[in-house]
Amino acid sequence: AQAAEEQFGVSNQQVLVLSETLAATQQQVQQLQESYHEIVNANKIFVDEILHLQKLVRAQNQVHNELINH
Amino acid sequence: AQAAEEQFGVSNQQVLVLSETLAATQQQVQQLQESYHEIVNANKIFVDEILHLQKLVRAQNQVHNELINH
Amino acid sequence: AQAAEEQFGVSNQQVLVLSETLAATQQQVQQLQESYHEIVNANKIFVDEILHLQKLVRAQNQVHNELINH
Repeated sequence: AQAAEEQFGVSNQQVLVLSETLAATQQQVQQLQESYHEIVNANKIFVDEILHLQKLVRAQNQVHNELINH
Repeated sequence: AQAAEEQFGVSNQQVLVLSETLAATQQQVQQLQESYHEIVNANKIFVDEILHLQKLVRAQNQVHNELINH
Repeated sequence: AQAAEEQFGVSNQQVLVLSETLAATQQQVQQLQESYHEIVNANKIFVDEILHLQKLVRAQNQVHNELINH
Protein backbone atom coordinates (compact mmCIF):
# COMPACT_ATOMS: atom_id res chain seq x y z
CA ALA A 1 0.00 0.00 0.00
CA GLN A 2 2.86 2.36 0.68
CA ALA A 3 4.34 1.70 -2.76
CA ALA A 4 0.95 2.35 -4.30
CA GLU A 5 0.66 5.58 -2.38
CA GLU A 6 4.02 6.78 -3.66
CA GLN A 7 3.16 5.87 -7.22
CA PHE A 8 -0.54 6.61 -7.41
CA GLY A 9 -0.95 8.72 -4.33
CA VAL A 10 -4.21 10.23 -5.51
CA SER A 11 -7.02 10.08 -3.00
CA ASN A 12 -10.72 10.35 -3.62
CA GLN A 13 -10.58 13.51 -1.55
CA GLN A 14 -8.23 15.24 -4.02
CA VAL A 15 -10.43 14.33 -6.99
CA LEU A 16 -13.54 15.37 -5.06
CA VAL A 17 -12.05 18.83 -4.45
CA LEU A 18 -11.14 19.11 -8.13
CA SER A 19 -14.66 18.08 -9.17
CA GLU A 20 -16.29 20.61 -6.89
CA THR A 21 -13.95 23.41 -7.98
CA LEU A 22 -14.64 22.57 -11.62
CA ALA A 23 -18.41 22.55 -11.02
CA ALA A 24 -18.18 26.00 -9.39
CA THR A 25 -16.09 27.28 -12.32
CA GLN A 26 -18.64 25.95 -14.80
CA GLN A 27 -21.41 27.76 -12.95
CA GLN A 28 -19.44 31.03 -13.12
CA VAL A 29 -18.92 30.48 -16.86
CA GLN A 30 -22.65 29.91 -17.34
CA GLN A 31 -23.46 33.14 -15.48
CA LEU A 32 -20.95 34.99 -17.67
CA GLN A 33 -22.64 33.60 -20.78
CA GLU A 34 -26.00 34.88 -19.53
CA SER A 35 -24.44 38.27 -18.74
CA TYR A 36 -22.94 38.34 -22.22
CA HIS A 37 -26.36 37.78 -23.80
CA GLU A 38 -27.79 40.63 -21.70
CA ILE A 39 -25.01 42.92 -22.93
CA VAL A 40 -25.63 41.89 -26.55
CA ASN A 41 -29.32 42.76 -26.11
CA ALA A 42 -28.46 46.10 -24.50
CA ASN A 43 -26.07 46.86 -27.36
CA LYS A 44 -28.83 46.26 -29.91
CA ILE A 45 -30.88 48.95 -28.12
CA PHE A 46 -27.88 51.30 -28.16
CA VAL A 47 -27.47 50.80 -31.91
CA ASP A 48 -31.19 51.53 -32.47
CA GLU A 49 -31.13 54.65 -30.30
CA ILE A 50 -27.93 56.00 -31.86
CA LEU A 51 -29.30 55.42 -35.38
CA HIS A 52 -32.53 57.18 -34.37
CA LEU A 53 -30.61 60.15 -32.92
CA GLN A 54 -28.51 60.40 -36.09
CA LYS A 55 -31.71 60.50 -38.14
CA LEU A 56 -33.23 63.22 -35.91
CA VAL A 57 -30.07 65.33 -36.03
CA ARG A 58 -29.90 65.05 -39.83
CA ALA A 59 -33.56 66.14 -40.03
CA GLN A 60 -32.78 69.12 -37.80
CA ASN A 61 -29.89 70.10 -40.05
CA GLN A 62 -32.36 70.13 -42.91
CA VAL A 63 -34.67 72.41 -40.90
CA HIS A 64 -31.71 74.71 -40.20
CA ASN A 65 -30.86 74.96 -43.88
CA GLU A 66 -34.47 75.85 -44.67
CA LEU A 67 -34.63 78.41 -41.86
CA ILE A 68 -31.35 80.02 -42.94
CA ASN A 69 -32.34 80.15 -46.60
CA HIS A 70 -35.79 81.46 -45.69
CA ALA B 1 1.11 -2.97 -7.65
CA GLN B 2 0.57 -3.75 -11.30
CA ALA B 3 -3.06 -4.66 -10.70
CA ALA B 4 -3.51 -1.40 -8.86
CA GLU B 5 -1.96 0.48 -11.75
CA GLU B 6 -4.36 -1.10 -14.20
CA GLN B 7 -7.36 -0.37 -12.06
CA PHE B 8 -6.48 2.98 -10.51
CA GLY B 9 -3.70 4.05 -12.83
CA VAL B 10 -3.98 7.70 -11.83
CA SER B 11 -0.72 9.34 -10.91
CA ASN B 12 -0.18 12.43 -8.86
CA GLN B 13 1.26 13.99 -12.01
CA GLN B 14 -2.06 13.66 -13.88
CA VAL B 15 -4.00 15.25 -11.06
CA LEU B 16 -1.38 17.98 -10.68
CA VAL B 17 -1.78 18.90 -14.36
CA LEU B 18 -5.56 18.97 -13.94
CA SER B 19 -5.27 21.18 -10.85
CA GLU B 20 -2.99 23.66 -12.58
CA THR B 21 -5.17 23.80 -15.69
CA LEU B 22 -8.23 24.36 -13.54
CA ALA B 23 -6.48 27.14 -11.59
CA ALA B 24 -5.55 28.85 -14.87
CA THR B 25 -9.14 28.53 -16.10
CA GLN B 26 -10.46 30.03 -12.88
CA GLN B 27 -8.11 32.99 -13.28
CA GLN B 28 -9.40 33.57 -16.82
CA VAL B 29 -12.98 33.41 -15.54
CA GLN B 30 -12.16 35.96 -12.83
CA GLN B 31 -10.66 38.33 -15.42
CA LEU B 32 -13.78 37.91 -17.56
CA GLN B 33 -15.95 38.81 -14.57
CA GLU B 34 -13.91 41.99 -14.03
CA SER B 35 -14.17 42.80 -17.75
CA TYR B 36 -17.93 42.25 -17.55
CA HIS B 37 -18.22 44.73 -14.68
CA GLU B 38 -16.23 47.30 -16.70
CA ILE B 39 -18.63 46.82 -19.62
CA VAL B 40 -21.66 47.20 -17.35
CA ASN B 41 -20.21 50.48 -16.04
CA ALA B 42 -19.47 51.70 -19.58
CA ASN B 43 -23.02 50.80 -20.62
CA LYS B 44 -24.44 52.92 -17.77
CA ILE B 45 -22.52 55.88 -19.20
CA PHE B 46 -23.86 55.11 -22.68
CA VAL B 47 -27.42 55.07 -21.36
CA ASP B 48 -26.88 58.43 -19.60
CA GLU B 49 -25.33 60.03 -22.69
CA ILE B 50 -28.01 58.70 -25.03
CA LEU B 51 -30.79 59.93 -22.71
CA HIS B 52 -29.07 63.33 -22.49
CA LEU B 53 -28.77 63.54 -26.29
CA GLN B 54 -32.45 62.61 -26.69
CA LYS B 55 -33.36 65.42 -24.28
CA LEU B 56 -31.18 67.94 -26.17
CA VAL B 57 -32.63 66.92 -29.53
CA ARG B 58 -36.19 67.21 -28.21
CA ALA B 59 -35.38 70.68 -26.88
CA GLN B 60 -33.98 71.65 -30.27
CA ASN B 61 -37.15 70.45 -31.95
CA GLN B 62 -39.05 72.77 -29.64
CA VAL B 63 -36.77 75.65 -30.67
CA HIS B 64 -37.40 74.80 -34.32
CA ASN B 65 -41.15 74.90 -33.82
CA GLU B 66 -40.85 78.31 -32.17
CA LEU B 67 -38.56 79.63 -34.91
CA ILE B 68 -40.87 78.35 -37.64
CA ASN B 69 -44.01 79.78 -35.99
CA HIS B 70 -42.26 83.07 -35.29
CA ALA C 1 -6.10 -4.21 -4.02
CA GLN C 2 -9.21 -3.67 -1.96
CA ALA C 3 -7.31 -1.62 0.60
CA ALA C 4 -5.83 0.44 -2.22
CA GLU C 5 -9.30 0.98 -3.62
CA GLU C 6 -10.57 2.26 -0.30
CA GLN C 7 -7.63 4.57 0.14
CA PHE C 8 -6.92 5.69 -3.43
CA GLY C 9 -10.10 4.67 -5.12
CA VAL C 10 -9.58 6.99 -8.08
CA SER C 11 -10.00 5.38 -11.45
CA ASN C 12 -8.69 6.58 -14.78
CA GLN C 13 -12.33 6.95 -15.80
CA GLN C 14 -13.00 9.55 -13.11
CA VAL C 15 -9.97 11.60 -14.11
CA LEU C 16 -10.86 11.25 -17.80
CA VAL C 17 -14.31 12.70 -17.14
CA LEU C 18 -12.74 15.57 -15.19
CA SER C 19 -10.26 16.24 -18.00
CA GLU C 20 -12.99 16.32 -20.64
CA THR C 21 -15.23 18.57 -18.56
CA LEU C 22 -12.33 20.92 -17.92
CA ALA C 23 -11.48 21.02 -21.64
CA ALA C 24 -15.10 21.90 -22.46
CA THR C 25 -15.07 24.63 -19.79
CA GLN C 26 -11.85 26.09 -21.21
CA GLN C 27 -13.42 26.22 -24.66
CA GLN C 28 -16.43 28.12 -23.28
CA VAL C 29 -14.06 30.53 -21.54
CA GLN C 30 -12.17 31.11 -24.78
CA GLN C 31 -15.42 31.85 -26.64
CA LEU C 32 -16.39 34.29 -23.89
CA GLN C 33 -13.03 36.04 -24.27
CA GLU C 34 -13.64 36.42 -28.01
CA SER C 35 -17.16 37.70 -27.33
CA TYR C 36 -15.72 40.18 -24.85
CA HIS C 37 -13.31 41.53 -27.45
CA GLU C 38 -16.21 41.96 -29.91
CA ILE C 39 -18.12 43.93 -27.27
CA VAL C 40 -15.10 46.12 -26.54
CA ASN C 41 -14.82 46.88 -30.27
CA ALA C 42 -18.56 47.65 -30.50
CA ASN C 43 -18.27 49.94 -27.48
CA LYS C 44 -15.47 51.92 -29.17
CA ILE C 45 -17.85 52.57 -32.06
CA PHE C 46 -20.59 53.62 -29.61
CA VAL C 47 -18.21 56.10 -27.97
CA ASP C 48 -17.24 57.54 -31.37
CA GLU C 49 -20.86 57.87 -32.48
CA ILE C 50 -22.00 59.43 -29.20
CA LEU C 51 -19.11 61.94 -29.27
CA HIS C 52 -19.99 62.77 -32.89
CA LEU C 53 -23.67 63.28 -32.02
CA GLN C 54 -22.71 65.52 -29.09
CA LYS C 55 -20.59 67.62 -31.44
CA LEU C 56 -23.43 67.90 -33.99
CA VAL C 57 -25.97 68.86 -31.32
CA ARG C 58 -23.63 71.52 -29.92
CA ALA C 59 -23.17 72.90 -33.43
CA GLN C 60 -26.95 73.01 -33.88
CA ASN C 61 -27.32 74.89 -30.61
CA GLN C 62 -24.89 77.45 -32.01
CA VAL C 63 -27.02 77.73 -35.16
CA HIS C 64 -30.10 78.23 -33.00
CA ASN C 65 -28.45 81.04 -31.07
CA GLU C 66 -27.50 82.76 -34.32
CA LEU C 67 -31.00 82.30 -35.77
CA ILE C 68 -32.64 83.65 -32.61
CA ASN C 69 -30.32 86.65 -32.38
CA HIS C 70 -30.72 87.35 -36.08
